[in-house]
Amino acid sequence: MPSYTAPVKDMQFVLHDVLKVSDSDTPGYSDLDRDFTAAILEEAGRINSEVVAPLNLVGDTEGCRLENGVVYTPTGFKQAFEQVKAGGWTGLDMPEEYSGQGMPVVLGTAVGEMFSAANQSFTMYQGLTHGAASAILAHGTEGQKSTYLPNMVSCQWTGTMNLTEPHCGTDLGLMRTKAVPQEDGSYKITGQKIFISAGEHDMAENIIHLVLAKIPGGPEGIKGVSLFIVPKFLVNEDSALGSRNGVTVGNIEKKMGIHGNATCVMNYDEATGFLLGEEHKGMRAMFTMMNEARLGVGMQGLAQAEAAYQNAVSYAKDRLQGRDVTGVKNPEGPADPLIVHPDIRRALMDQKSFVEGGRAFLLWGAQLIDQAHRAGDEDADGLVSLLTPVIKGFLTDQGYDMTVQAQQVYGGHGYIEEHGMSQFTRDARITMIYEGANGVQALDLVGRKLAQDGGKHVMAFFDLVKEFCKEHADDDAMAEFTAPLKTASKHLQAAGMYFMQNGMKNPNHALAGSYDFMHLFGHVCLGLMWARMARASLDARANGTTDPAFHETKLATARYYMARRLPATSMHLARIESGADPVMALPAEAF
Amino acid sequence: MPSYTAPVKDMQFVLHDVLKVSDSDTPGYSDLDRDFTAAILEEAGRINSEVVAPLNLVGDTEGCRLENGVVYTPTGFKQAFEQVKAGGWTGLDMPEEYSGQGMPVVLGTAVGEMFSAANQSFTMYQGLTHGAASAILAHGTEGQKSTYLPNMVSCQWTGTMNLTEPHCGTDLGLMRTKAVPQEDGSYKITGQKIFISAGEHDMAENIIHLVLAKIPGGPEGIKGVSLFIVPKFLVNEDSALGSRNGVTVGNIEKKMGIHGNATCVMNYDEATGFLLGEEHKGMRAMFTMMNEARLGVGMQGLAQAEAAYQNAVSYAKDRLQGRDVTGVKNPEGPADPLIVHPDIRRALMDQKSFVEGGRAFLLWGAQLIDQAHRAGDEDADGLVSLLTPVIKGFLTDQGYDMTVQAQQVYGGHGYIEEHGMSQFTRDARITMIYEGANGVQALDLVGRKLAQDGGKHVMAFFDLVKEFCKEHADDDAMAEFTAPLKTASKHLQAAGMYFMQNGMKNPNHALAGSYDFMHLFGHVCLGLMWARMARASLDARANGTTDPAFHETKLATARYYMARRLPATSMHLARIESGADPVMALPAEAF
Repeated sequence: MPSYTAPVKDMQFVLHDVLKVSDSDTPGYSDLDRDFTAAILEEAGRINSEVVAPLNLVGDTEGCRLENGVVYTPTGFKQAFEQVKAGGWTGLDMPEEYSGQGMPVVLGTAVGEMFSAANQSFTMYQGLTHGAASAILAHGTEGQKSTYLPNMVSCQWTGTMNLTEPHCGTDLGLMRTKAVPQEDGSYKITGQKIFISAGEHDMAENIIHLVLAKIPGGPEGIKGVSLFIVPKFLVNEDSALGSRNGVTVGNIEKKMGIHGNATCVMNYDEATGFLLGEEHKGMRAMFTMMNEARLGVGMQGLAQAEAAYQNAVSYAKDRLQGRDVTGVKNPEGPADPLIVHPDIRRALMDQKSFVEGGRAFLLWGAQLIDQAHRAGDEDADGLVSLLTPVIKGFLTDQGYDMTVQAQQVYGGHGYIEEHGMSQFTRDARITMIYEGANGVQALDLVGRKLAQDGGKHVMAFFDLVKEFCKEHADDDAMAEFTAPLKTASKHLQAAGMYFMQNGMKNPNHALAGSYDFMHLFGHVCLGLMWARMARASLDARANGTTDPAFHETKLATARYYMARRLPATSMHLARIESGADPVMALPAEAF
Repeated sequence: MPSYTAPVKDMQFVLHDVLKVSDSDTPGYSDLDRDFTAAILEEAGRINSEVVAPLNLVGDTEGCRLENGVVYTPTGFKQAFEQVKAGGWTGLDMPEEYSGQGMPVVLGTAVGEMFSAANQSFTMYQGLTHGAASAILAHGTEGQKSTYLPNMVSCQWTGTMNLTEPHCGTDLGLMRTKAVPQEDGSYKITGQKIFISAGEHDMAENIIHLVLAKIPGGPEGIKGVSLFIVPKFLVNEDSALGSRNGVTVGNIEKKMGIHGNATCVMNYDEATGFLLGEEHKGMRAMFTMMNEARLGVGMQGLAQAEAAYQNAVSYAKDRLQGRDVTGVKNPEGPADPLIVHPDIRRALMDQKSFVEGGRAFLLWGAQLIDQAHRAGDEDADGLVSLLTPVIKGFLTDQGYDMTVQAQQVYGGHGYIEEHGMSQFTRDARITMIYEGANGVQALDLVGRKLAQDGGKHVMAFFDLVKEFCKEHADDDAMAEFTAPLKTASKHLQAAGMYFMQNGMKNPNHALAGSYDFMHLFGHVCLGLMWARMARASLDARANGTTDPAFHETKLATARYYMARRLPATSMHLARIESGADPVMALPAEAF
């Protein structure tokens, strides 16, 4: 069975040495000193290693079961969820007035990575609740907030997001679910929603569904969509649970992975719903939570890669197979461990440099969200809005590839379910799809975010890279990191320039390169993160760190990323600069 | 449910317009005229679309079942296998003297792609039998051949290959299974083998296991391994089945995919075995079949990509979602089909350019095997030996990636098992692992094949590319294909040069780049294939083809490969030229 150990030391390094969170003047950050975050992260690490992770394979093997309208979660999930609730983990970064802990998103994200890495299916029950609660927090009336939030923050009640219908996923304008206004101000919701994660289960007293639907007579398409709160059990004035609402689970899907999470077909049959936010402004309400939700999915991709990597490392150290060609390393044994072989090293270094770089990128994104929300920093808001599709698309695509590499280290044993390596790839696979498939992320990035506010945010990003490089221009020790970063950043600028010069006459010249652009951007971001981490480790070394091995390892991993991963940027640029013609040449019937 | 249509037209194009098989003087090739191969391919296409493919999802869903030592295959497998046997498909490229059809490998490979694409799990039962029969054909005594081959060629009896043990996969020198010589010349085989595909099942009267084992007192390690024939039922002098041998199935594995194929733990308890080939020369006996077996796995990777691609295309044409940004394409409908979107096109073109280029590469490899075996052409033998790890490693890695892309076209529906897109990726995943994991292919390529016969074969490959480019240097219409091919080929040469110059002092400088080299080589091969296909389509156009649309499509796809796929070579070269240092910098304990 695979195991999981929380990377507390690495998270501490990113939070304190790289992002320097406790030096920040963002409200709430002054609490985040080293000892405090260490205590939180270690405690979170413990519950995840000991309670949550051991249920990962169980969840995959047993899956969820639907019987007479009741969904049963896998053995042990319910008890573990009670422990997580009791620990206050579900409300870590929710407001104190609704019984949360009021911590910044950056800390919630670090802890969130642990939960996702330990058991993605299990963690989705609280993750969806967090998303739904955030929507109510942002758009609910005072009455709605006090009715729903305390129980959702504590996960006594869980939440769901209902967007997709059988015939519409990305294109929500095609939606058919109806919301008919009633005299008392409520609505009757009727329709079918699919792919509803945690739609029904046995781990909470109530389930608060957020449902997108159309009010008859409203605008056509996406502009006529509104958002509703549809509780499984209606809530009485005295907060007690009232009658059962007209929402039922129709089926649970058989999926490639995340078996421990119930993915439900939900049927709404004149269910009572309450408008959340304004009429016909449902999509806007969804969009305000999207940065956080997409960052959360990027985190899941990274988390699966981390968990898979940890197990690949221990297998590579334990499994004896073949001999080091440069000289026997384990003369007492029948063979050397796998880790002596250069190609196994390559695979492990790919994974290590991705997960550590990706973690820094993710936590930087979370820090920007805190700056935007807690300090009202509009530049930070614009920047994280630009980076969000990159965080989601790049971290999940690459995260998935890394789980495949980790599985490959196991050879044939990686294909056998009992070792758990297959599960990491199967669970990671969904992160490339949900919360906006990665092609849609690329479209969002190139079609919307690049030009947002007159291109101000992408220019800010380039300036940030430039300033970093300039700041360290006189430091010879930094040259090996800033030089490749500069080259990669130039590739990204050239790609942006190509879009500007060609996308006006034909938007397909930009859109055909959008996926490559997202990856090119991701590599530049990880290049920047590695340069910043190298800087932090050089500083630590200069300041006489007590842990020189940690920082030497960090510097070597930074060098690996620069030498072995960053060269991808020139390939992406070449693809982008070939434009739309090779992509769009064929008529549809030629396929 | 997914469907499969055999790509007969494309196969005919490769066989006749590109490889020009019927013009070849390789013995047996003169039979391969257009009408003959068309008849065979169409008939094979029919049984695969109608009989074999519809069982693919069934096999995945039901899997195999072990009860009281009997393995039950999924519903319908047995009846379908009888139809396949009755059609003579299992012996298509086996010698006529053992009731085969005596066709060249090139035709067997084209038909084999169809079977694998239609149902990989099902096809493995005959695939393993083919491999075992080839071993007996190459190394058996006349008595062994007449005893086993006719029934194996017809698949009345099936075969297996028993190499792996729990503690040894790639490093077979660690093997523990023993073979104790008996007075009658037979051996008693005792030990446990794992990951035995088709190890036990209910579709054949007898199962002929080929088992690697050590004769006590023989040389240490890999040099003391011998190969044995161990039939499930011993065969009497009169060819009737005799007593049950001491081989039993211990368990069947729960795997990520290929559920329809029984992957068995096999226990040998003083089972009677017969030496195949010479004592202690078991690995040599295995290696003689390896080119064909590895080509066969490369074919499986390609085949899964083809099947997944076909379904992605039809989903992209059917599914209405969003609008073409350059102008509405389906004004009568609520939305345009997915295929209008540039990023969907990119994904489909990636797949199309891979499967068609990969098919040409694969069939070229098969043609080389025929030249080697049927015409005794040593140069062809050397070249295909060089290309084999590329065919296996590149076609399975890329084939897998393409199944992931095809699944992605389906969005959320791709993650739900009933659509079958998940199965393509799960089934394709094993091809990167078995028959030598792809890291081992890269090691074989760089560590053995490059330098084989003084580097003669890799030089021959470069000459072949050079000559092709020179031959068409005066043809302006070819310049857009030969120019990028030349660049890519130069990258490959530079990589080879880097290995030569640096690998001598430290072999890790070569080995750390081996995986990238395999992919770089694969891209150059597909580049060559696309240039050759472009040549063939330009010729067809010049000669007034009756199907101009087919050839225009081919040319456009060739352009796509050159513009969008081939730029990967510079990235691989950059990685290779960074050498071993970034890869090997860390001590093992730093991971």
